[in-house]
Amino acid sequence: MATRMALLPQCLSNDAFSGIHQPARSHSLEFKRTPSTNLRFSNLKGHVVFGCGARFERMEARFPVCARAAAGDSTRGFGDLAVMVNDCSGKMGGAVAEAAVRAGLQLVPVCLTGPGLGRSFSIQGVNVESVDSQERERVMDQVLQDYPNVIVVDYTLPAAVNGNAEFYCSRGLPFVMGTTGGDRDKLMEDVLKSGVYSVIAPQMGKQVVAFQAAMAIMAEQFPGAFSGYKLKVLESHQSTKVDTSGTAKAIIGSFQKLGLAFDMEEIEMVRDPKRQIEEMKVPEAHLNGHAYHTYQVVSPDGMVIFEFQHNVCGRSIYAEGTVDAVLFLAKKIRERSDKKLYNMIDVLREGSMR
Amino acid sequence: MATRMALLPQCLSNDAFSGIHQPARSHSLEFKRTPSTNLRFSNLKGHVVFGCGARFERMEARFPVCARAAAGDSTRGFGDLAVMVNDCSGKMGGAVAEAAVRAGLQLVPVCLTGPGLGRSFSIQGVNVESVDSQERERVMDQVLQDYPNVIVVDYTLPAAVNGNAEFYCSRGLPFVMGTTGGDRDKLMEDVLKSGVYSVIAPQMGKQVVAFQAAMAIMAEQFPGAFSGYKLKVLESHQSTKVDTSGTAKAIIGSFQKLGLAFDMEEIEMVRDPKRQIEEMKVPEAHLNGHAYHTYQVVSPDGMVIFEFQHNVCGRSIYAEGTVDAVLFLAKKIRERSDKKLYNMIDVLREGSMR
Repeated sequence: MATRMALLPQCLSNDAFSGIHQPARSHSLEFKRTPSTNLRFSNLKGHVVFGCGARFERMEARFPVCARAAAGDSTRGFGDLAVMVNDCSGKMGGAVAEAAVRAGLQLVPVCLTGPGLGRSFSIQGVNVESVDSQERERVMDQVLQDYPNVIVVDYTLPAAVNGNAEFYCSRGLPFVMGTTGGDRDKLMEDVLKSGVYSVIAPQMGKQVVAFQAAMAIMAEQFPGAFSGYKLKVLESHQSTKVDTSGTAKAIIGSFQKLGLAFDMEEIEMVRDPKRQIEEMKVPEAHLNGHAYHTYQVVSPDGMVIFEFQHNVCGRSIYAEGTVDAVLFLAKKIRERSDKKLYNMIDVLREGSMR
Repeated sequence: MATRMALLPQCLSNDAFSGIHQPARSHSLEFKRTPSTNLRFSNLKGHVVFGCGARFERMEARFPVCARAAAGDSTRGFGDLAVMVNDCSGKMGGAVAEAAVRAGLQLVPVCLTGPGLGRSFSIQGVNVESVDSQERERVMDQVLQDYPNVIVVDYTLPAAVNGNAEFYCSRGLPFVMGTTGGDRDKLMEDVLKSGVYSVIAPQMGKQVVAFQAAMAIMAEQFPGAFSGYKLKVLESHQSTKVDTSGTAKAIIGSFQKLGLAFDMEEIEMVRDPKRQIEEMKVPEAHLNGHAYHTYQVVSPDGMVIFEFQHNVCGRSIYAEGTVDAVLFLAKKIRERSDKKLYNMIDVLREGSMR
């Protein structure tokens, strides 16, 4: 018998999720069942509501969630894996929640959001409620009760990164951190100390990471292979993006090792919609959300041209990559891997998981 | 005192060099000086003619050429390294000879060519004579006398590959084999048995090899990273090229490992000059000699596009890569490396050498 979809707690809150900033909690975990008297339960069409069964008896004392997730259920593709996306009332979180449902994963129908932003909404036919993060302890008690194999995905705000990670760690919740910013050193330190399973990556577009890694490997293995060649870099993003692309900078770093003289100042930032459409071939519908990159490498005599492009519209690549990270993490938990902290390179090395 | 440029033997022959097919020779080397009574010597402006000096006394019994080349001369960039290009009366050989001179290397002003094809010609101001390959033993005696640090480059014909390699091996001559075709297994076997230093590669375009290797590494490290994506491949070559590009096939092999379903039959071969100019942007001047490749990778929802291009006009990339291979080989000889047989990946790993 498998734990399926349950509708969780009625909640409070919506959109910008900057709430979870409480100080770090103790790593000793309490798994007392919080009374759900103030929580409204409802059935979702086609889903059965119930809590966890007896087959997680062997759960470890320290991280029961991981222990439960590890048990899995081989009769279904992803066992009883459930995904809680904080904050799936936001755009990126919403895209991940959609991708998770499309991939056949259970979406926990509750998420945490910023103070006073709670609301109800629907994602791929699943009614989800966002709850004020001030209620997070109680909400999480209920989630853990109903979705013992839960993995949390975090797409919130830079200011919430560290507080949220501390909370997930304090509850022994495996998580995928897709939110950028915050104190990354502290983030890594907290996670390593806690021993929870996590994937932390500033770029969740798996294929972009693969290309970036391939360029880095080429540079490392074949330094100076393009000595004397000239590099030209164009990047186009929505006009609201004022800084240069971090991915472009990382890839240019590899080109520099390959022998190409290039100053980051030489990156040509395209923010003019007319040029984006005509020159970069950005579809008009995606002027407000795209990441186009062109690297052109030309030999000294102009007879050889290499051109590399990675052109992304919308959020699906990041959402799909995040789902891959969730599946990867579930696998590592199931395998009881000694290594706990991962990035997208680790996810890529694992190969396709669906 | 350095051995500089000497004009070698008057010779016989030109263009198609298919002559050297004699059976393998013994590996015991004779270094008797062949009388040069039938050879016409002449001075080249700015070059001094003379034989090898006393500083190669320690030359090894088996492969005196390698021993000499190993000695080098640190006061000059490339020591007394000289390059003999067979057949530099041909187009590709000529391009290599030009690149070698441009790089500041000594070009041996004689080369071997097919029967009855001998002639005189000029390469970057160096008067070169091509000699019927039937004279090769005598020619090589003289070359070894005047250019003890010679490295041979072979751009001849597929039918000459094995015979030529056997000859170079029999004379202990380090060589770079740029000619494709022939019995490659036998080639490798002969070279390994002989213990001469050599670089053997079917693709001398160093940067193309780097890209190809990067794709192979990406596929090996991140299998299935592009699962579900669609691949489209266009390749344009001069209209005389009837088969599909070998480089494209190798790179598609990597894409397949990355999870892209693709049949080699799906490669779109562009041979129509109009389309080459308009669609592929091939310069009209290079319609008769180019290698353009475009790989387009698109996500299932069409929101993500990766595009990789390597577009080559003319021969300079191959010629420059060959000169790099020569410099690499000279370095390995100088280092008395235990490994003797190399390919372009080895050359790339060494980093930029100029």
